[in-house]
Amino acid sequence: MIQAVYQLSGSRTEAASLADKVALEQSLEVPRSVAEAAGLPAGTIGEVVSLEPAPDSAWLATVHYATWLASRRPSQLLNLLGGNCSMLPGVRLVDVTLPDELTQHFAGPRYGIPGLRGTLGIAKRPLLCSAIKPRGVSNERLAEVAGAMALGGCDLIKDDHNLVDEDAQAFATRISTIQRAVRDAQQQTGRPCLYLPNLAAGPTDWADYLKALENAGIQGVLLAPMLMGFDAVAHLRTSTDLLLMAHPTLAGGPLLGTDHGIAPAVLLGTLMRLVGIDASVFPNAGGRFAFTQKTCMDLAHALRRDDGPGPGAWPTPAGGMSVDRIDEQAEIYGPETCWLVGGAMLQHPDGIERGAAELHEALVARFGDERTDISTSQHVSACEVPMPDGISTAVHTVLRRLESGWEDRHAVDYKADDALPFQGVKRYELMGKADEPMHFDVRYFELEPGGHTSREKHRHVHAIIAAEGRGEVEIDGQTSPLDAHDLAYIPPLAVHQIRNRDDNTPFGFYCIVDRDRDRPQAP
Amino acid sequence: MIQAVYQLSGSRTEAASLADKVALEQSLEVPRSVAEAAGLPAGTIGEVVSLEPAPDSAWLATVHYATWLASRRPSQLLNLLGGNCSMLPGVRLVDVTLPDELTQHFAGPRYGIPGLRGTLGIAKRPLLCSAIKPRGVSNERLAEVAGAMALGGCDLIKDDHNLVDEDAQAFATRISTIQRAVRDAQQQTGRPCLYLPNLAAGPTDWADYLKALENAGIQGVLLAPMLMGFDAVAHLRTSTDLLLMAHPTLAGGPLLGTDHGIAPAVLLGTLMRLVGIDASVFPNAGGRFAFTQKTCMDLAHALRRDDGPGPGAWPTPAGGMSVDRIDEQAEIYGPETCWLVGGAMLQHPDGIERGAAELHEALVARFGDERTDISTSQHVSACEVPMPDGISTAVHTVLRRLESGWEDRHAVDYKADDALPFQGVKRYELMGKADEPMHFDVRYFELEPGGHTSREKHRHVHAIIAAEGRGEVEIDGQTSPLDAHDLAYIPPLAVHQIRNRDDNTPFGFYCIVDRDRDRPQAP
Repeated sequence: MIQAVYQLSGSRTEAASLADKVALEQSLEVPRSVAEAAGLPAGTIGEVVSLEPAPDSAWLATVHYATWLASRRPSQLLNLLGGNCSMLPGVRLVDVTLPDELTQHFAGPRYGIPGLRGTLGIAKRPLLCSAIKPRGVSNERLAEVAGAMALGGCDLIKDDHNLVDEDAQAFATRISTIQRAVRDAQQQTGRPCLYLPNLAAGPTDWADYLKALENAGIQGVLLAPMLMGFDAVAHLRTSTDLLLMAHPTLAGGPLLGTDHGIAPAVLLGTLMRLVGIDASVFPNAGGRFAFTQKTCMDLAHALRRDDGPGPGAWPTPAGGMSVDRIDEQAEIYGPETCWLVGGAMLQHPDGIERGAAELHEALVARFGDERTDISTSQHVSACEVPMPDGISTAVHTVLRRLESGWEDRHAVDYKADDALPFQGVKRYELMGKADEPMHFDVRYFELEPGGHTSREKHRHVHAIIAAEGRGEVEIDGQTSPLDAHDLAYIPPLAVHQIRNRDDNTPFGFYCIVDRDRDRPQAP
Repeated sequence: MIQAVYQLSGSRTEAASLADKVALEQSLEVPRSVAEAAGLPAGTIGEVVSLEPAPDSAWLATVHYATWLASRRPSQLLNLLGGNCSMLPGVRLVDVTLPDELTQHFAGPRYGIPGLRGTLGIAKRPLLCSAIKPRGVSNERLAEVAGAMALGGCDLIKDDHNLVDEDAQAFATRISTIQRAVRDAQQQTGRPCLYLPNLAAGPTDWADYLKALENAGIQGVLLAPMLMGFDAVAHLRTSTDLLLMAHPTLAGGPLLGTDHGIAPAVLLGTLMRLVGIDASVFPNAGGRFAFTQKTCMDLAHALRRDDGPGPGAWPTPAGGMSVDRIDEQAEIYGPETCWLVGGAMLQHPDGIERGAAELHEALVARFGDERTDISTSQHVSACEVPMPDGISTAVHTVLRRLESGWEDRHAVDYKADDALPFQGVKRYELMGKADEPMHFDVRYFELEPGGHTSREKHRHVHAIIAAEGRGEVEIDGQTSPLDAHDLAYIPPLAVHQIRNRDDNTPFGFYCIVDRDRDRPQAP
């Protein structure tokens, strides 16, 4: 079952009554008489299992909820633990223990501490992260700032959480400008550096933003779970390969106040990690916000603990770190920490690059600079190529088939590189590349005699309609012929390849895919 | 510009410093020296325009932000107004004034007060709403509860916000069972009653839940903006015709506490209405939560004010209403109020129906029962039929084309009714109906000689691939021939019809559509 601990105000009698109220409110929200009359299955009503005195004349009530009440959904887990009771004064959620039965449905961080160490090739030291600002300057200026941070030795560079673009097009332009600067710096230093744009997208333009990230070759993002919703974060975790860094904006409502809300270790620690956050930003003690050192350490512990789901995530304290304080802060937080440093770099008298370099050097001096092999990222496999310049994607209400191809559509490259071998493949992008308001792309592939696509897998599925000639499809080792109007469905992660099985004529097929999709991987 | 008023704690000097900190933090989050050195356009930094004493030894600071800082995005507006400063103790957002330049990008409520009066045919009295509970009982029992509420005279029946299903299939089964009971009751009483299921979906299963709502003929939903995110709410407003009722779960974090967070009138009033909420639920004064009467009235005013965007929304106080208190509460809230009554109905000694009837009768006695013509809902146009029982939707990796149709696929009805005339149309659902993880459906239509589809329009687009025979497509009055492998793209809201133009052979075409789509309408 799910165990929640609430800190309650008042006398013992008041606290006991409040505990009962919370257990009922959170699970059923009906008077007990109605609940009892309904003949509910055991455990449907939350159960208060203990009430103990706590410091500051408060009480700690432990409440058990049946696991099924969380419906395996992050938003419902939050609703169950702290939804309506957020409006009950004197009730604060301070601890949560989740059963394996629930956590097994969550992936946890994709990268977390070991994965990001591998991506960056950093064996033991803490990570150095900064944020590019301010909003209002040109993209070129933001790119300069990012480049300087990367040259100086930042491992991660995130957008300020206020950097929100007017639309996906502006976002695409901005992030590709910045990403270029970071890549150039990487080439100079020989050290990996990840740029994490602020993914402030919603259901309306989600797909366009993800496409922009993919086109720019971005490997991770900053996001604000309190603005976006925890279900959306979990969705990003499972439907993309992106590294996810969480920003705590708007979380202060629940976090502040000692007699209501949710403890930071639960909201920014346990729950962030559960939904797949790799690095969780929080205000460091001694900075301009109000977290105590104990609060920060509880939060760091909740992120790093080794009982899953997935690997531990990076505590990412913001504020309070400087060259002078490396030893003191290193003592407190240890090496598995991602340091977010802003003002100290931006205000450095000798410039941003020098500001970053001093911090980088101080971390290396304290922790060493042992490198590891850089993991092959899931992002470096062959990807579908962006549309070449000069190729029309104009929308036609009717697109006429010609002897070869279609009017105003020319064959484009099948793949950007040959990491996943293929042969004799023509690709036509028929619909979807002009931002038509639809969630899929319609493509046509033509295989020469002897031609075949890459043998590959990916999470997105293919809907294939054989059109002309005689082909075959191999799906997880099983080969079937495909003749005109036969359909093939390639399930998620099935290893597949399509081949022409005729010696003389081309084999052509339509392939429809989600517009928002992951990249192909080697089998 | 956007005007925000913050209540600040401390001495005048402390408050002045805090006001400056907020203005800088919320707009740029950099030290002032960095901001000034960056040569930013005017207005990029928030400006403190006044600081006035307020009761309870606090201060009211008025801050102006440039409108473009909100990026026309609800989540960014919330981030700008109350994001990071939610973590600054002593800062509470208490009022917001938005310029037309911003609000014109938001639709506001689709129905609001006048629209919902039209849908329900209720000219002047307050509305009566209840919530079905508890979670854990059978769907049939929930349907009985809903039926009794509808028979007794509820105008709206919502799911409890804890009613969250395991998946979209369970949701579909549950809501169709309940919707049937509510419809049966409507037929008996002759009075409209809307059932609002709890839409606890995320990006992963959004489309499936919307499809379930459409299949069950549901016209509105309950949702939790603090769990789902304001961008998702705005998306529902613009991409569906659903009536939207907001539940305040998890909002307590920001709402409680007098020295931090966001005033209820802003969060549950102004911002809910902005993103398109038609009815906003809040804890009534005197109920089991802690809102004062003044808080409730400020909130009601923010929802109802007549300066847009869109029509005013329904204040929906929960708790504190009973037959004995009708006069007192009516005096306070007036007729433009939706009363959410739970326990009093569920616990009525003579049963739920009688509990609802007593409240309904008391409201009618006080406010009269004047009726208006019932508006024709946008939901009553012809819709695509759900899959008939016994038709296979099984997933096949390869689906073989037969002489007529495909293996394991049989033609299904083209339309559920003949509101939009058509002739000689066979429909095959090829992929997408088995919850394959993709965002589109692949269908095949075969038109007999003389056959044609309905002339209709809708917001979703069609990607059409002509396959066999000779057809033609009419798009906004323009007719073009369609032969094998010609493609047609039907843009949003284009009036269109597809016809066989051959006297002897069938015309067949594939039609690919977003899985999450609106219903066809008459031209």
